[in-house]
Order: sequence, then structure tokens, then C-alpha cells
Amino acid sequence: MPANRAQTAQPNSAADYLHRLRVYWEDTDAGGVVFYANYLKFFERARTEWLRHLGVGQQALRDSSGAIFVVTDTQVSYRSPARLDDELQVTVTLQHRGNASMTLHQQALRNGALLAEGQIRIGCVDAATFRPRRIPHQVIDLFA
Amino acid sequence: MPANRAQTAQPNSAADYLHRLRVYWEDTDAGGVVFYANYLKFFERARTEWLRHLGVGQQALRDSSGAIFVVTDTQVSYRSPARLDDELQVTVTLQHRGNASMTLHQQALRNGALLAEGQIRIGCVDAATFRPRRIPHQVIDLFA
Amino acid sequence: MPANRAQTAQPNSAADYLHRLRVYWEDTDAGGVVFYANYLKFFERARTEWLRHLGVGQQALRDSSGAIFVVTDTQVSYRSPARLDDELQVTVTLQHRGNASMTLHQQALRNGALLAEGQIRIGCVDAATFRPRRIPHQVIDLFA
Amino acid sequence: MPANRAQTAQPNSAADYLHRLRVYWEDTDAGGVVFYANYLKFFERARTEWLRHLGVGQQALRDSSGAIFVVTDTQVSYRSPARLDDELQVTVTLQHRGNASMTLHQQALRNGALLAEGQIRIGCVDAATFRPRRIPHQVIDLFA
Repeated sequence: MPANRAQTAQPNSAADYLHRLRVYWEDTDAGGVVFYANYLKFFERARTEWLRHLGVGQQALRDSSGAIFVVTDTQVSYRSPARLDDELQVTVTLQHRGNASMTLHQQALRNGALLAEGQIRIGCVDAATFRPRRIPHQVIDLFA
Repeated sequence: MPANRAQTAQPNSAADYLHRLRVYWEDTDAGGVVFYANYLKFFERARTEWLRHLGVGQQALRDSSGAIFVVTDTQVSYRSPARLDDELQVTVTLQHRGNASMTLHQQALRNGALLAEGQIRIGCVDAATFRPRRIPHQVIDLFA
Repeated sequence: MPANRAQTAQPNSAADYLHRLRVYWEDTDAGGVVFYANYLKFFERARTEWLRHLGVGQQALRDSSGAIFVVTDTQVSYRSPARLDDELQVTVTLQHRGNASMTLHQQALRNGALLAEGQIRIGCVDAATFRPRRIPHQVIDLFA
Repeated sequence: MPANRAQTAQPNSAADYLHRLRVYWEDTDAGGVVFYANYLKFFERARTEWLRHLGVGQQALRDSSGAIFVVTDTQVSYRSPARLDDELQVTVTLQHRGNASMTLHQQALRNGALLAEGQIRIGCVDAATFRPRRIPHQVIDLFA
């Protein structure tokens, strides 16, 4: 018997950060549900707030160090649709931290039911040249 | 002497509702500032939260009455740019309420400085046919 | 007798430029139609192609002169909805050209029926400071 | 010696379809480049035009069969940034076709240089219930 995957999936219980957001008209498509590409936006909002929670503002980081984070790889599985007015919880879990990149596991859930999840790899680059560079110490030290 | 318009503009002091939001990467463009079309999204988030604050969920309204609100006219003036990580305040002020439409004045501000403002006219339509219809009583009664 | 406004509206017959585009999933919302804010994107694509048609690439203009065009005012009326897979025609008509700004009238049509129209005011600013500046001669001369 | 990955990557030479598109302001972010999530939109435009080229309109398919395609899994690697005004070529290559899903390999290139690529898995669902269903015969037969 096919179980409802969304109900039985185990949300990540050890997330480093949880960000709540609401689904608005702008997020939906003519299928009546959240447009799948927008989960990448939701995941990014959560990463941004996670960094801010750790004390890192990305505009300030760019102004002070010339470094910006860019997304280099994304893998997302869409399990169950979200709809207008839904309140979602979006998690951030650091999986790997290198000298010039980080890999995060992220989930979007609604009342504990898993809607989408994936892995996002972030690289640090020079804002002017987009060449890879080491993550600034002020960020590295947060994960030491 | 050319004053900084953003500093001297008088924000709306009698707004019916104020919604706070953060500027993320998704909101910006290659000019380094918030893409102007996105203020329509910010205004809509504020209207949605204003309605929710009044007890109206739009998905629930559609499910119970078959009515949805659509935007019929927008007028927006962009005065000063917003940037990544800015926290904005978005106001909603009801200017006119008819039987089948409403007109709202909305502003986006940063620390009290006016960034964008405009008038948004909303019409009520049948979700299936998009024909204009009276705003459901449960909403009208909120403004009686 | 309720006339179909979309059928009877007179599309602009003297447009300076016409851009064709297709409605994709990304353009729609849960109402099953094109999300209204996206007409600002459609109008901008048409303006960009109009400028390109006249020989002006905006990235090249920025690189050579430091000038970028920014949208300062928008007024749009939404008359009839567009749906997934619709092919739209988007027009550009120059209404006013000043030293530092331009005002354009734009329409979105489907098979000659008017779906949305509005006025868009564009200002020329310095890309680094966002201060208003004269439109570069290479652009002004196109409209002399 | 750090080679320019974008120059040396081998673009897919046996793509089933190639869609050309232009980068507009709406596609970029404050990094000055195309916002990574928008490659999912570019890939979808190419898939939509590929299906249309094969004779399948998705709105028409929904109206006639009640079936819609939804994206169930995406994996994208971002190799080199695209900028305003760039003209991109987006490819579609069918990798696997099942009874209720398809997997596609897609690339975004600029003048033959690989900018982004990935795998997109599409499932067929009932538009009303979002339950998986067989791909309608009119589509299956195209790949027989």
C-alpha cells in the first residue's frame, strides 16, 4: 500500500537553523502549488538568516572583504506540494566545510511533513573576478 | 540645495498595517539593488498579511466562496534603491472600498525613509471564470 | 450588454517596436493566469529588445559610459488574463524623451486583444552612485 | 595551471533540442550575474519548447487529458556566470523515458562554452490530485 511519503518522511532533527516563511501568490504557479524553482529561493533565505544568526551579513562581508558566496551545485527532490498561505519551515544543516566551499543539507517542511529537500554547495569567490578564494576568517572561525 | 528625497519624504503615519521583510539575493538585480518589479511582490505580501491579520486567509476564502482577489491596476513610484540585507517596512492603507474592489495605498520604507510607494487596486472575481463579483460578506463586514 | 473588454480595446497601432514572447510555467500563479507583476518583466524585455534593435546594448552602454537606465515610475492596468502557452505581443511606444528620462507606453496583447497596458518612466543614472545623469549621446542621437 | 573550465567543457553535441534565449535584468542578481535559480527557468523554457516542437502543448494536454508534468528532482552544476544581454543556448536531451516519468539532461551554453548543466526528472501527475499517472499516449508515442 502506497504510504503518503510526506507524512512518513523523517524530517531532519538536528538542523543547525530553522527559518519560517509563508507561501504567497508570487511563489505559486498555474498548477496551484509552489513553483519548484522557488524552493531554491526558500533554501537561500534560510541560509542567509542562518549566516545572519551567526553574525555574518553578506553585504557587510562583501564590503569588508570583497568576498561573496555563490551557489555552485544544487540537488533538490520535490516530494509533496505546498500551497498558497502554507507556513513552511526551512532547515539548514552544515554537512561539510572546506577552505573555499561549504555543503549544506536543507529541507522544507509543513507541520513536520517533508515537502522538499536537497544539498546545496556554496563556494566563496572574489566579487569582482568570480575567482574562487578562501572563505574569510570571520566566517571560518564560526565553524572552528 | 538638493535634499535627499529618501530622507525627507514623509512616510505614511496612519497605515492600517505594517509588514517587515528582508531583502535577499533573489530580490536584487545586476544594478546591485532591488529589482523594481519586486516591490509589487513586497506590497502583495503586506496586503496578504494585512488580510490574514483581519482574519481572512485567501486560500480559505477561495475554498469557501469561490472568490479570489486579483490586481487590476498598479501605480508605483520608485524613489530610492534598497539593497541586499536591508530590512524594509511595507505599509497598507485602505483608501477606498467598493462592493467589488478596493484601492490601497502602500509604501516601502527603510528606517523611516521612503523607498517606493504606490496605489494598488484589487478586484474580486470568481476563481473559475474571472468575472467580477461582490466581495464576500465575511470580508466586507471587516470594513463596515 | 457586457462587451468583452479584451476584444473591443484598440491596440496601439503605431508602436515603435513589437516583441513576441511565450508564457511559461514560471510566469503563472495559482490563479491559473500570468502573475500581474510579471507584465513589468514582459514590458522590460520589449524595451530591452527595442533598444537593442536601435543599436543599444545596456551592458555595453554601462561598460562604455557608466550609465544605466532605471525604472522610476510604472502605471499598469490589467484587463484580461493570459495563460500558460499563450503567445503575447508586447509593444513599445516612446511618448516623451527628456535629457535624463524617457516615458514609454506599452501594451501586452494576444492575437490583437489587449491584456495589459501602461506607462513606464525610465531615468538615466550613474551605475555607481545612482545619481541622475544625462542620457548618453549615443542614445539621445537615436531619437533626434 | 588553472584552465578556464567554461572554455574547455564539452557541450552536449547530440541534444534533442536547442532553445535560444536572452538574459534580461529580471534574470540577474546583485552579484552582476544570472541568479542561479533562474537556470531552472531557462531549462524549463527549453523543455516546453521541445515538447511544443514535438507537437505537445502543456495547457492543451491538461485540458484534454487532465495530466500535467511536474518536476520531481533537479541536479544542477553552475560552472561559469552569464551576464546581462548574453544570448544563451539551452539544450534538452532525453536520457530516460518511463511510463510515468522522464529524465532529461540539459545544458546552458554561451557561444559553445558550458555555463550550467544538470539532470531534471519530470513526473506525470493528475492535475486535480497530484497523484502519479501514466504519461498520456499522445506523448508516449512520440518517443516510441
